[in-house]
Amino acid sequence: FDFGRRQLRFNTDGRFKILQVSDMHYGFGKETQCSDVSPAEFPYCSDLNTTSFLQRTIASEKPDLIVFSGDNVYGLCETSDVAKSMDMAFAPAIESGIPWVAILGNHDQESDMTRETMMKYIMKLPNSLSQVNPPDAWLYQIDGFGNYNLQIEGPFGSPLFFKSILNLYLLDGGSYTKLDGFGYKYDWVKTSQQNWYEHTSKWLEMEHKRWPFPQNSTAPGLVYLHIPMPEFALFNKSTEMTGVRQESTCSPPINSGFFTKLVERGEVKGVFSGHDHVNDFCAELHGINLCYAGGAGYHGYGQVGWARRVRVVEAQLEKTMYGRWGAVDTIKTWKRLDDKNHSLIDTQLLWTKNTTLEPNFGFSCSTIPQH
Amino acid sequence: FDFGRRQLRFNTDGRFKILQVSDMHYGFGKETQCSDVSPAEFPYCSDLNTTSFLQRTIASEKPDLIVFSGDNVYGLCETSDVAKSMDMAFAPAIESGIPWVAILGNHDQESDMTRETMMKYIMKLPNSLSQVNPPDAWLYQIDGFGNYNLQIEGPFGSPLFFKSILNLYLLDGGSYTKLDGFGYKYDWVKTSQQNWYEHTSKWLEMEHKRWPFPQNSTAPGLVYLHIPMPEFALFNKSTEMTGVRQESTCSPPINSGFFTKLVERGEVKGVFSGHDHVNDFCAELHGINLCYAGGAGYHGYGQVGWARRVRVVEAQLEKTMYGRWGAVDTIKTWKRLDDKNHSLIDTQLLWTKNTTLEPNFGFSCSTIPQH
Repeated sequence: FDFGRRQLRFNTDGRFKILQVSDMHYGFGKETQCSDVSPAEFPYCSDLNTTSFLQRTIASEKPDLIVFSGDNVYGLCETSDVAKSMDMAFAPAIESGIPWVAILGNHDQESDMTRETMMKYIMKLPNSLSQVNPPDAWLYQIDGFGNYNLQIEGPFGSPLFFKSILNLYLLDGGSYTKLDGFGYKYDWVKTSQQNWYEHTSKWLEMEHKRWPFPQNSTAPGLVYLHIPMPEFALFNKSTEMTGVRQESTCSPPINSGFFTKLVERGEVKGVFSGHDHVNDFCAELHGINLCYAGGAGYHGYGQVGWARRVRVVEAQLEKTMYGRWGAVDTIKTWKRLDDKNHSLIDTQLLWTKNTTLEPNFGFSCSTIPQH
Repeated sequence: FDFGRRQLRFNTDGRFKILQVSDMHYGFGKETQCSDVSPAEFPYCSDLNTTSFLQRTIASEKPDLIVFSGDNVYGLCETSDVAKSMDMAFAPAIESGIPWVAILGNHDQESDMTRETMMKYIMKLPNSLSQVNPPDAWLYQIDGFGNYNLQIEGPFGSPLFFKSILNLYLLDGGSYTKLDGFGYKYDWVKTSQQNWYEHTSKWLEMEHKRWPFPQNSTAPGLVYLHIPMPEFALFNKSTEMTGVRQESTCSPPINSGFFTKLVERGEVKGVFSGHDHVNDFCAELHGINLCYAGGAGYHGYGQVGWARRVRVVEAQLEKTMYGRWGAVDTIKTWKRLDDKNHSLIDTQLLWTKNTTLEPNFGFSCSTIPQH
């Protein structure tokens, strides 16, 4: 059941680090101007600022995987050779030799390639672990392009060497709904994608719990999805979040239930989105962290004086009784800014293995609400 | 594909009328006191008031189908013989000889029968067209009990005599979620139920559009579901609704996407719920009417001075060129009160055949939002 999904492994120091780069909105490089930068910066600013920010961050963070979470390129009928834009946009990742993946946002297909052909193109770029869709996509008649699962195995010397101990799900949140009655509203994760997610998740849980070295719970999962789910909009008070909200959440107009599916499965600990460039918070709902990355690209809209940024997620394994690496113990996150000091901000613990939710106390005559 | 679903037919006057009775909260009949009635009424009030209200309405409305939409009986550990409660609760429908169906609410199973055994019991009562689950439930590993579809065929003399021209979907919204981290919150319509709905709906659309007498669109559908979906909570201004809101919507804590599934299919014109006894409004969202029935039973909570009530839905067929009955032309609804005059209020048109939604204008460079 690996279908080429098992090409990632924890390091021998028990860590695995993922760099999320969202909304680069890459155009043509040097000729493409910046948006929302100070007047002083504007004349000298172009897509190349985005490129150097990415190079800078790869050097400082040395991630094990780079995830480009959509609106990687800025079609908008500006570019007539989006392949070239993509080559430039992903160049720092390709040059770094670090495995990388990409999913699509709502803008990527707005020029001379369809979403399908874009994912086929991305799939073939060097060091790309991206997939157009999972091998069993036909079974689910899956909607969209760029839905796939990556399984990160235990490190060398660990008894979990052959097990996926961190499950990544990358999903195509689509662009604009094609339904009548909605004018120009964003699309959503469909039931076909949710059915694929549910069955893949159940298979991985089964594999995680079986011999050899059976684990007693599912491995933690992370989801990368460009357009934030409606649940992101529930968070408005700074006390509820780490990071900031500076614009409203532009989620789909109706809720297709993907958050509920994740809650039901109890596997995913974080959903990482982009799309709303000047939001960069994480907030927790029913045991799932909803996190923005903030906009990384200079060509996409931003906010003068608010540095472009990326989000880093790091999973740390526990030590077993025999001093060997076991399952994932903690998941942390922070952000890196493209400011003078390349600041590292908002470090927070997203999940620990012994986080448990309040147990369901079930039905009893005395506890029934009047309703 | 009828699986015993084709036992209902439009009348030769081109109409079909459905009486929805919600939240009877029936106990033991005469010994069971009323809630929220005036001090003057209280001494003389019992479940029998609910019974006579139902008898009164069956006589005045003469429906073609009666739908009991949950919390039909009030377990609450009060009754130790819920079968007896059900016999009394459904007696007026059974005695009327009119076909009837029931689904379960969140309270029904709170005594000496499980939801499954209750539906098995209800299924066998006289004139009941209820089903425990659809014949193809195993295929979907469907959640809950009391998920089924009824297909109402064209009248005698109509070319659509063999076609389902009004599709009813009855669903088990469950009672309380069993998930950790939710304490005591209501359950929701699961993906398994949504997959069953989607495939049944697609099959019926195919059948509706094929020879003989192929129709150019899907037949309209109606959904009956006890616990209102989260989308009901969107409506708070009286200008948005026909009827009133007098309490907040007690929907599931998270959204499982069933409303979105209905929008995607474009078949269902109304979702009819209960549960919030003192709400009785209808409001429209993306072409789907979200309607409360209001509480019918005297044992369940209500509001002094606000009559118990039921909701009626009537579909009217169009006349074809040859003067024969064709497809459904309009769907109307109103409410009947258990007040002195047995008032009929809030008559409104829910849907007409030529209702169309604003067409999706698709993607073009000029229309793309900055986002």
